[in-house]
Amino acid sequence: MTEFKHKGSLGPVVPQNIEIDLGTEGFVLENGKVLKKLNIQYESYGKLNKNADNVIWICSPLTADAHVAGFYSYDDPKVGWWDALIGEGKSIDTNQFYVVCSNILGGCQGTTGPASINPDTQKPYGSSFPNISIGDMVRAQKKLADALGIRKIHSVIGGSMGGFQAMKWSIYYPDYIERCIIIASSSRFSSQALGFEVVARDAIKQDPHFNGGDYYDSKVPAIGLSNARKIAHITYLSAISMEEKFKRKHIKNPNPNQFLMGSPLESYLTYQGDRFVERFDANSYLHITYATDTFDLETEYGSLENAFINTKAEFLNINLSTDWLFPPHESRKITNALVNTHKKITSLELDTLFGHDGFLLEVGDIGKAIHSFIQPNYTNAKKQDTRELPAFNDKKDYAILESIIPQGASVLDLGCGNGDLLYNLTNKKQIQGLGIEKKFDAILNCIKKEVPVIQKDLDERNLQSFKKQHFDYAILNRTLQEIKSPLALLHEILRVSKKAIISFPNFGHWSVRAALWRYGRMPKSKELPYEWYDTPNIHLFTLQDFIRMCESQNLIIEKLFTDNDKFFSRLLTKIGRKNLGAERVIALVSEKDKD
Amino acid sequence: MTEFKHKGSLGPVVPQNIEIDLGTEGFVLENGKVLKKLNIQYESYGKLNKNADNVIWICSPLTADAHVAGFYSYDDPKVGWWDALIGEGKSIDTNQFYVVCSNILGGCQGTTGPASINPDTQKPYGSSFPNISIGDMVRAQKKLADALGIRKIHSVIGGSMGGFQAMKWSIYYPDYIERCIIIASSSRFSSQALGFEVVARDAIKQDPHFNGGDYYDSKVPAIGLSNARKIAHITYLSAISMEEKFKRKHIKNPNPNQFLMGSPLESYLTYQGDRFVERFDANSYLHITYATDTFDLETEYGSLENAFINTKAEFLNINLSTDWLFPPHESRKITNALVNTHKKITSLELDTLFGHDGFLLEVGDIGKAIHSFIQPNYTNAKKQDTRELPAFNDKKDYAILESIIPQGASVLDLGCGNGDLLYNLTNKKQIQGLGIEKKFDAILNCIKKEVPVIQKDLDERNLQSFKKQHFDYAILNRTLQEIKSPLALLHEILRVSKKAIISFPNFGHWSVRAALWRYGRMPKSKELPYEWYDTPNIHLFTLQDFIRMCESQNLIIEKLFTDNDKFFSRLLTKIGRKNLGAERVIALVSEKDKD
Repeated sequence: MTEFKHKGSLGPVVPQNIEIDLGTEGFVLENGKVLKKLNIQYESYGKLNKNADNVIWICSPLTADAHVAGFYSYDDPKVGWWDALIGEGKSIDTNQFYVVCSNILGGCQGTTGPASINPDTQKPYGSSFPNISIGDMVRAQKKLADALGIRKIHSVIGGSMGGFQAMKWSIYYPDYIERCIIIASSSRFSSQALGFEVVARDAIKQDPHFNGGDYYDSKVPAIGLSNARKIAHITYLSAISMEEKFKRKHIKNPNPNQFLMGSPLESYLTYQGDRFVERFDANSYLHITYATDTFDLETEYGSLENAFINTKAEFLNINLSTDWLFPPHESRKITNALVNTHKKITSLELDTLFGHDGFLLEVGDIGKAIHSFIQPNYTNAKKQDTRELPAFNDKKDYAILESIIPQGASVLDLGCGNGDLLYNLTNKKQIQGLGIEKKFDAILNCIKKEVPVIQKDLDERNLQSFKKQHFDYAILNRTLQEIKSPLALLHEILRVSKKAIISFPNFGHWSVRAALWRYGRMPKSKELPYEWYDTPNIHLFTLQDFIRMCESQNLIIEKLFTDNDKFFSRLLTKIGRKNLGAERVIALVSEKDKD
Repeated sequence: MTEFKHKGSLGPVVPQNIEIDLGTEGFVLENGKVLKKLNIQYESYGKLNKNADNVIWICSPLTADAHVAGFYSYDDPKVGWWDALIGEGKSIDTNQFYVVCSNILGGCQGTTGPASINPDTQKPYGSSFPNISIGDMVRAQKKLADALGIRKIHSVIGGSMGGFQAMKWSIYYPDYIERCIIIASSSRFSSQALGFEVVARDAIKQDPHFNGGDYYDSKVPAIGLSNARKIAHITYLSAISMEEKFKRKHIKNPNPNQFLMGSPLESYLTYQGDRFVERFDANSYLHITYATDTFDLETEYGSLENAFINTKAEFLNINLSTDWLFPPHESRKITNALVNTHKKITSLELDTLFGHDGFLLEVGDIGKAIHSFIQPNYTNAKKQDTRELPAFNDKKDYAILESIIPQGASVLDLGCGNGDLLYNLTNKKQIQGLGIEKKFDAILNCIKKEVPVIQKDLDERNLQSFKKQHFDYAILNRTLQEIKSPLALLHEILRVSKKAIISFPNFGHWSVRAALWRYGRMPKSKELPYEWYDTPNIHLFTLQDFIRMCESQNLIIEKLFTDNDKFFSRLLTKIGRKNLGAERVIALVSEKDKD
């Protein structure tokens, strides 16, 4: 035996091929056409448990294959395309889970596709292969799952076009799918992405060797397919990663007669095109890209909300900052639709330089998120809040919140940190909670506690995507003074939520006033611990200021919690005493003309 | 005569064609090859003045032509491609200026190119046409300018690849070019943009009809050229404009057998490709794109600074927010290089939804900027500062500044508003001024006053691109408290400038302290006029705080200007009195261990 090349990888693994028993009716496609035969090539790792429900189902992206982890032989030069995530003790732990990934319908790697033999003619399908849809791909995979005796899928996971499939799984088989993980995907292609797909298909169809798709006994449309791949490949990379990769100073030997610059970029693209022609069939590329391009949940179901309305899975949706094929703002539409249909949804915004390819490369953070999501573990989660000032976690504060929030309410916690407050309220008062948080590590802790959370910077994007009065209560703890446009946020909060619970440090506290009066310096205190130049508290205000602002904005302060207000002169008004005495204020606020 | 279709347009205009007198040596290209004959097709509007120096020279972008304004006949369906900008009384006023635009070398619209007759063979050049460069295009245009008797070019203007030419004009002919306007351009293509160009050229070269470039007596490589154009066309649009243009709901009549979705996007791209084939020659496309792709000022001159070192023009550089073919961060490199080589440079960052095509469509703002730049007019400029609080424009403040800043100093004014301070200092103390400002309207006023200004948000991008100690003085007037990271900016300022003049409202002023002490509310005053929730003053501080901060940051306060400090108790320290008495402070600050 040669030396073990791929330490920590599974293997050798063996691809399996199964012919699905279709009975007499064949595999009826969503367009009504029928495939008489259906073969599926797949790989699986780990063991199916007794309940047949420990299944992680991986949906393959556009041109990848079932070989998602492990190696085929001890001298195999490479491992599966998500090997870093899947294996013994890895994020997706094959000691715990039975992992399955299949080659997609319409492909060219063992699952039925245009190069397969047409049972009617005993020749490759070629131009007679019927159009397929993402739904067909998923329905074929379900037949495989049934054949494997799987009773329930613990988590379906898909990146890119795999995300399309994962969503369809959750929509078609709501009782079968417990968790759905969508990475670098969207509910449909953007017009820009579609534009490049259209040109890529044109390049293939216009290749003189294409012959309408019937080229299997002749030359393949290699130039067209190669050019299609080159275009697509550029869309997988980010501008910044390309700039890093192909520095101009590397250019040598220009070959101007051929309009070649001698740039590593040119040879890279040619290489990508050539390798693709070796491993992929042009007809498969046309069929699969056509399926992705016509995938459009919004049009198909009338709205994205409608698409998800009957799903029962918990969702994790991850987008990538520099992905311009599936840009973050498209991915967020999925998150918003799931929030608005009251699904359990956690969303992450991963920073990456790698563009769309980040879903294959940023396996560190993606792995942590997937692992926490599929195996939540409260005891592993950080208990304390990440912020320097704790969020309602002393008994007194928490008692105030418990006194306000009724059993079973829906609660939005803006800036939820590690999710402790929502975790406690969920357990003690059975609330439906959703957190908003910007820090990745804090969100990981929320995931471990099974607290749904949306990654969002309250300054950068507000709550416009959420429905009116969707929540009963919104909590904004010690954050209003950190917001760029506090009024705008306050109004947004009271649009999406019936009532708001706002806590803030009181700049009117006697110690603050005294410090400025006596020392002529910006005050620092337990509640205001920062230097003036690095404080996040950019809009300081007093209790009095807050009260006047509420008056001017038609907001009602229903309840006001302060402390230490009894030591001050009876000559002062009640509010005057509170304004002097309270270091921090908790207010229950609602809008006038609202229930 | 039919009704006048194009009101306000010039015309009818007549394209001219001139054969350049090349003597015996021919037109020697930068690669050493020779064109024996050089024809140039051009258009001109307005009249050359006596001094032969009222010339606006327009450089045509990639596939446009010399028909930049006006119409050819009264029933001409369309006008020139920048007609909105050029004409009688327009931004580029043909009553004032003589405007020239020529078809570029290597093109296919009357100027010598690959489809021209090769004098040696009396057949079209085809594959024998030599490679050309952007420099060659400019050198050919200079021959036209000489032939037209032009003594000096008032302004050269170019968008996109026209910007490449405009820069080369300023580099090759420093004494000839007085102003250079660069729009939606960069010093070289990004790797991403280059990637699409490479694939587009591959599509043409691989078309079976291309025949190495010798196809003029046969079929043209229409499919390749059309696909090339489709790819390029997508890069001209923004993702958001495509989304707006091609809404999914418009999709009808899918034609799945041909992998056609029936989307307006598909027919739009096909249309664009087909029209392009009708009007453009594939060889020209290859030659011109190859010239743009190999254009690289950084590599050619060693650095971008080096490229511009001998230019004498004043520059205006405009980028477009959603342009991803020439992204703003690439365009800014030109601005930075010009700043660092002490050139007069004004830069604008235009917001547009139109992507790269914005340079043809955002003619309103582009027109205003060009007009102000080529015809500055102090009396038309707004005199007052745009900010609610005036910038050093009362006599006392200005006197302080004059007392600090010596004759001929170089001065950076951060947040320069309408440019009054720099205008006055330029006139009275002959300083070399540069403003930084974020508001378009304020910048227009600066341009009218001939005050160079860089459009920049001090919070978003700092001064890292500027050289160390490039300026003698930096002025930051009432802005430090508005900055997200005031310390970081302060250190950046003192990196690029030897000394800094900082003014700020003093939160330690007795009236501020008294208001908070007495009323328990956030103080408002002449210097602090905002409500707590909409104030831009997000990092308030006192004079004492400022002094302590300077100590902790190794900054020396060389001079301190305050007022009203004489009324306070002699029991206080001197600084204590100033801290109580000064509503506003002006400090001259430098870093320890510097000069």
